[in-house]
Amino acid sequence: MADSTLPGSADVWACADAVRRGGPLVHNVTNYVAMDLSANALLAVGASPAMVHAHEEVVDFALLADALVVNIGTLSPNWVESMRLAVRAATDRGIPWVLDPVAAGATSYRTQVGAELLAHRPTVVRGNASEILSLAGMTGRGKGVDATDESGDALEAAVALAQVTGGVVAVTGDVDVVTDRRRTAHVAGGHPLMARVTAMGCAASAVVGAYAAAVADPLMATASALAVFGLAGERAATGAVGPGTLRWRLLDELYALEQSTVLAGTRIS
Amino acid sequence: MADSTLPGSADVWACADAVRRGGPLVHNVTNYVAMDLSANALLAVGASPAMVHAHEEVVDFALLADALVVNIGTLSPNWVESMRLAVRAATDRGIPWVLDPVAAGATSYRTQVGAELLAHRPTVVRGNASEILSLAGMTGRGKGVDATDESGDALEAAVALAQVTGGVVAVTGDVDVVTDRRRTAHVAGGHPLMARVTAMGCAASAVVGAYAAAVADPLMATASALAVFGLAGERAATGAVGPGTLRWRLLDELYALEQSTVLAGTRIS
Amino acid sequence: MADSTLPGSADVWACADAVRRGGPLVHNVTNYVAMDLSANALLAVGASPAMVHAHEEVVDFALLADALVVNIGTLSPNWVESMRLAVRAATDRGIPWVLDPVAAGATSYRTQVGAELLAHRPTVVRGNASEILSLAGMTGRGKGVDATDESGDALEAAVALAQVTGGVVAVTGDVDVVTDRRRTAHVAGGHPLMARVTAMGCAASAVVGAYAAAVADPLMATASALAVFGLAGERAATGAVGPGTLRWRLLDELYALEQSTVLAGTRIS
Repeated sequence: MADSTLPGSADVWACADAVRRGGPLVHNVTNYVAMDLSANALLAVGASPAMVHAHEEVVDFALLADALVVNIGTLSPNWVESMRLAVRAATDRGIPWVLDPVAAGATSYRTQVGAELLAHRPTVVRGNASEILSLAGMTGRGKGVDATDESGDALEAAVALAQVTGGVVAVTGDVDVVTDRRRTAHVAGGHPLMARVTAMGCAASAVVGAYAAAVADPLMATASALAVFGLAGERAATGAVGPGTLRWRLLDELYALEQSTVLAGTRIS
Repeated sequence: MADSTLPGSADVWACADAVRRGGPLVHNVTNYVAMDLSANALLAVGASPAMVHAHEEVVDFALLADALVVNIGTLSPNWVESMRLAVRAATDRGIPWVLDPVAAGATSYRTQVGAELLAHRPTVVRGNASEILSLAGMTGRGKGVDATDESGDALEAAVALAQVTGGVVAVTGDVDVVTDRRRTAHVAGGHPLMARVTAMGCAASAVVGAYAAAVADPLMATASALAVFGLAGERAATGAVGPGTLRWRLLDELYALEQSTVLAGTRIS
Repeated sequence: MADSTLPGSADVWACADAVRRGGPLVHNVTNYVAMDLSANALLAVGASPAMVHAHEEVVDFALLADALVVNIGTLSPNWVESMRLAVRAATDRGIPWVLDPVAAGATSYRTQVGAELLAHRPTVVRGNASEILSLAGMTGRGKGVDATDESGDALEAAVALAQVTGGVVAVTGDVDVVTDRRRTAHVAGGHPLMARVTAMGCAASAVVGAYAAAVADPLMATASALAVFGLAGERAATGAVGPGTLRWRLLDELYALEQSTVLAGTRIS
């Protein structure tokens, strides 16, 4: 890295380029709402997505994948078992895996599933402030999938979670906070209109999975993925009438993002 | 209301504004095809969507929500049980709930599930003419999700259904008919190209849910939601090459819709 | 046909027009990721899509449909049973059905389900080279949903599969190869950017279903559907910044495609 502790813009570009060159296969056990946008975001950044959940094949598939993304958005006991099987296979193989604890805190079932998966020590957890506070057992005011706490408030919770997992925890919001306890990166970017498109956070988690597959350092991978996602979202929002435009432009921007844009636009501190 | 019986354009705007200001949480137990567009339409009008169906949490979640939308598009016994649980919780709490009886009449299973849910007296039923005729036990010619009866023909059926539910019944088509028996509103708007985009009706039902959460009078909420949806669709279709454009423009229009547009464009009689 | 063995551009247009005029009802038992794009592609070409999978109604629904499309993208035992029931009903009625063996070869479960469905002799099988090689028991290098073999390499496998099914087998890639053993059409078209949009192949299979419903000759139907899909994709990609644009433009192009464009743009040899 340009700096001994945090990724710089050249590192972000190096990560983006590594994903494009490597085309990692990202195995998603994710929610019904997020599947389409997640798959398209992964394709746009140069990765190869797969959505596989049957108990009969989820382990076999995890053996082929370069990373796993588990998202609890639309839970059911059958899918939770798929998640368990996939996580165990990923852990056994040592590939990185990302947990997106959608709406943790909204119901006790959801909080319990989140806690169980967390105990398997995800390489990266990516959530909004409410979700991260809830997972850390601190007071979250989450009432669903939309964040109602500021991400800055959740830094303490993120550090506590990272202590538990030994991995990276990212709290996304106006400024994304990414920590592995030792290092904490603040990633600026994105646009408020992104919150008016469903599954944006889920798609960001999927992209984190792709980056974590391509780059050895999970903090750098996570911060880079979020920097790229935010930058693309920011550019997509420029001149957008509304969320309909933003959604497809985001995919275009992720696909077409150039080195000069990343070098000029990355804001990590 | 401007008029003692039917909402006027100022009422429609007041409803739209109430949704934007209140940001109601809308709980959807809906079909796989409609999840993405429904969630995005809800976000575009200023509501907060959640798709939650596990038996383990569907009741807990209904307790957080401001409205419930149940859509039978992609049925299975497990999901029907989710619907039952969610409907009971919504009824117990007294929050409004919307039934979208997708393709009722196409199979006996679907007709039977529709009838069972209807018996729980939804605040609003929104369907096309074939679906409403089928639910009312009158001759529907439905062969799937697309309407094959004119909505005007279904007024009698809508009134009969509203008698059963004690709520509002909306038949969407070239002109939408919305009745609570006492009052019947005809809402003009929309564009034929909307029928070439999947899940448009489902998304309209979701938006009805958001409006019913924000406004006390279900007839006004339903007519207003359909007026706004139709107006946005009409504007989105202007100059659109085809259904691809229409879909994202609809979301932009729902998001950006202004008071002056609603005041000038609403056509309710 | 213009030629005694292969469809010409006039035949392709005749097929496209037959779909628009007939509006066939296409029953899909397909994967969660593909539902939205498949339904929208079917609507864009003038067909009527339905996604129905409950064991309680899948047979009833197959009786209403003009074609069936079975896609194994997101498998589970419960859905496999839906596929079995739907395939049997379609076969009993003699309506055409299409098998899309997504990621066959990636896991043994997937390969086994593909083989079982194949034994029911689909009217058309549409896959990429890896999937077709795997289904034929030849060496596929598939590691997921994206093709890693050239479609030309798979011609031998396609002919072998067509021998088993007695139907048509299509291998899509840079040039699509469509064979019924007796005749082999090479359909040029499409654009590399299409591979960066999820569920493109699935949507092509759905459109093949619509064409097979409207036209008696499965080879002509399949080649025509792929020619139209490729042509629309090619035009959609022209000037597209990235895959976000491509996706919605494809739907616009499918919807708006004119006779002159088809006559000038079809490249079948």
